[in-house]
Amino acid sequence: MKNFVFHNPTKLVFGAGTVEQIGQYIKKDGIKKILLLYGTGSIKKNGVYEKVVRSLYENGIEKVEVSGVRPNPVLSKVHEAIDVARKENVEAILAVGGGSVVDSAKAIAAGFYYEGDIWDAFIGKYNVKKALPLYVVLTMSATGTEMNGNAVVTNEQTKEKFYFSSKHVFPVVSIVDPTVQYSLPKEQVVYGAIDAISHVMEYYFDVSGSNLIDRVDEAILVTLMETTEAILKNPTDYEARANFCLATTLALNGLTGLGTDGGDWSSHELEHAVSALNPDVAHGAGLAVVFPAWLEYVSDLVGEKLIKFGKNVLKLRGNVTTQRTIKALRAWYKSIGAPTSLKELGFAKSDIEELTNIAAKHAPFGTVKELKVDDIRKIYEIAYE
Amino acid sequence: MKNFVFHNPTKLVFGAGTVEQIGQYIKKDGIKKILLLYGTGSIKKNGVYEKVVRSLYENGIEKVEVSGVRPNPVLSKVHEAIDVARKENVEAILAVGGGSVVDSAKAIAAGFYYEGDIWDAFIGKYNVKKALPLYVVLTMSATGTEMNGNAVVTNEQTKEKFYFSSKHVFPVVSIVDPTVQYSLPKEQVVYGAIDAISHVMEYYFDVSGSNLIDRVDEAILVTLMETTEAILKNPTDYEARANFCLATTLALNGLTGLGTDGGDWSSHELEHAVSALNPDVAHGAGLAVVFPAWLEYVSDLVGEKLIKFGKNVLKLRGNVTTQRTIKALRAWYKSIGAPTSLKELGFAKSDIEELTNIAAKHAPFGTVKELKVDDIRKIYEIAYE
Repeated sequence: MKNFVFHNPTKLVFGAGTVEQIGQYIKKDGIKKILLLYGTGSIKKNGVYEKVVRSLYENGIEKVEVSGVRPNPVLSKVHEAIDVARKENVEAILAVGGGSVVDSAKAIAAGFYYEGDIWDAFIGKYNVKKALPLYVVLTMSATGTEMNGNAVVTNEQTKEKFYFSSKHVFPVVSIVDPTVQYSLPKEQVVYGAIDAISHVMEYYFDVSGSNLIDRVDEAILVTLMETTEAILKNPTDYEARANFCLATTLALNGLTGLGTDGGDWSSHELEHAVSALNPDVAHGAGLAVVFPAWLEYVSDLVGEKLIKFGKNVLKLRGNVTTQRTIKALRAWYKSIGAPTSLKELGFAKSDIEELTNIAAKHAPFGTVKELKVDDIRKIYEIAYE
Repeated sequence: MKNFVFHNPTKLVFGAGTVEQIGQYIKKDGIKKILLLYGTGSIKKNGVYEKVVRSLYENGIEKVEVSGVRPNPVLSKVHEAIDVARKENVEAILAVGGGSVVDSAKAIAAGFYYEGDIWDAFIGKYNVKKALPLYVVLTMSATGTEMNGNAVVTNEQTKEKFYFSSKHVFPVVSIVDPTVQYSLPKEQVVYGAIDAISHVMEYYFDVSGSNLIDRVDEAILVTLMETTEAILKNPTDYEARANFCLATTLALNGLTGLGTDGGDWSSHELEHAVSALNPDVAHGAGLAVVFPAWLEYVSDLVGEKLIKFGKNVLKLRGNVTTQRTIKALRAWYKSIGAPTSLKELGFAKSDIEELTNIAAKHAPFGTVKELKVDDIRKIYEIAYE
């Protein structure tokens, strides 16, 4: 086990009927005016918007709204909201939505106090020193952003999808009410599950780590798979939703990375190129394609872990091999309706070169194996069909 | 899964060679003078005292010392330290030791600002409003106090062993360096393990809960058992120590209780009477005796969980029954050198009545089954031999 520092100050408020409490938590902290950030309107259809607005009103909290945050959130929207937040002199940000809204809110919270362009935080030119307090009502469980200090945003001008991390943007309070997710489209559940599963796997297949955290990882992975199946069968199964939601939060709140080298995030790098070349590809769909391909490419280096994964997570019995495990993972992705090849995502074989070029901008990357241009190309070739 | 609020603001600094960092963390928070609290001198033998004092000196932090905290820490020592802290006008408490020292430090930190007797917090007469910041260098992993807001102290005058919980006494920073525990006596490892195992079981056998947290519980329990065996064989096995230490922290930092009804702490109640009647009985030794007896008494109510525990934690195969599981748990306790009956602890059959009277002061207690006087007596009878 490697040395580590763990510090996660977010207060997680979890369960049915908790959305209505948001105003109380904000009021308790002495905040009187917030920027309410949300997406393209689903919160108005599922009743969450109304509950939030009523709770703010009942607790005497003034709001200004910025809406229209989209999946793969963009920097221009962050800039727009920072301007509003400054002009209106808000004291906090309230993000109501999924990962895109929360990640944007983190950039806004940090950008509020920064004189330059907050993009500097994403490209390593600015180390965030201060941020507005952030409150979250999560409406889609997937990325784990509700309980960490990470944000991913795309700069439309440079076509870069980068992230920053800061202790200053951990949400103060995050409300996760599984019942508001009953109405999510099936594919969002599937891609959310694959995103969370990938987060755990990025740590699990890091060859550092410990027996304890490997077992915790397995607990989360088994639960994610079991509950995804249950939710697809019955979207209003509360126990399945609650277990799913909590598992996605724990997948990336620091717990799964304790004592590791920080994980091997190659698959996330490889996926970013896929959804950069075709923005219609959901992050989870891209991960379902590239992660098994990466595993195949590095299988000699993570052989023991793959076999443990096959036995303990996929519950394979008999003679468990690395190839059988990878095949079973792909089969499970297929069974929940996810794509498992670049071809299925609509790419042509000739696209591999461009994917390689995009991903290679960050190369070399990877801790299990340091991937260079040739490695990247070979993984996309494996992923092709 | 029940609704919950999870908030754990402690910064956990973990790993070999981290003791030396304590001064930096305190300095970073702008603190210039602390009360250094420790026990009866083992930290002077194992080199921890010297490292701490040097780190404080190098970071320009003044200290006043109070030492002599004993296992089953007492209120009079807490009073003594509060007086010193006030007279010397310290800005924080630094606890260097095991659970007794850290728990005492929590009471001192809270008592510093309270005009009445801090015992009021233990008997529910005072809800802690404020406390001095608390820093911890842990020298024995067992109770989990390094990452929670609980403290257990004994009032020698009233012979009551009570606890209080407050968000104000979560340590700001807790340093856990597994290497400083290499020199712990074997029995402290065994009783520490049983204490931590019991903490997880109190939640696990609560009939509420969730599949996810049950699996996380199992991950922690399996690790605790595996590493206890490894440490007893080789006290300087770093991986085993590190996994053990982290497992004891996670056992009671809130994670294992997520979505439960709060656990059924009957066994802790039953044990407190045992170590109250004979203060030479270690808490872990008492738990090894009463927990299996409690399980036997309520086995009809937790049958499914017991069988799951037998299969997933104790790795029993074939026809797993509740009785086989309890027998295997006792056998494992015996195998690591723990007592499994009141008789072995030196009690006579005639002591059962007094044990019952002491425990019954808090009766009825328990959520799986509400225990009244008769139930309590029957459990001690089961525990007798």
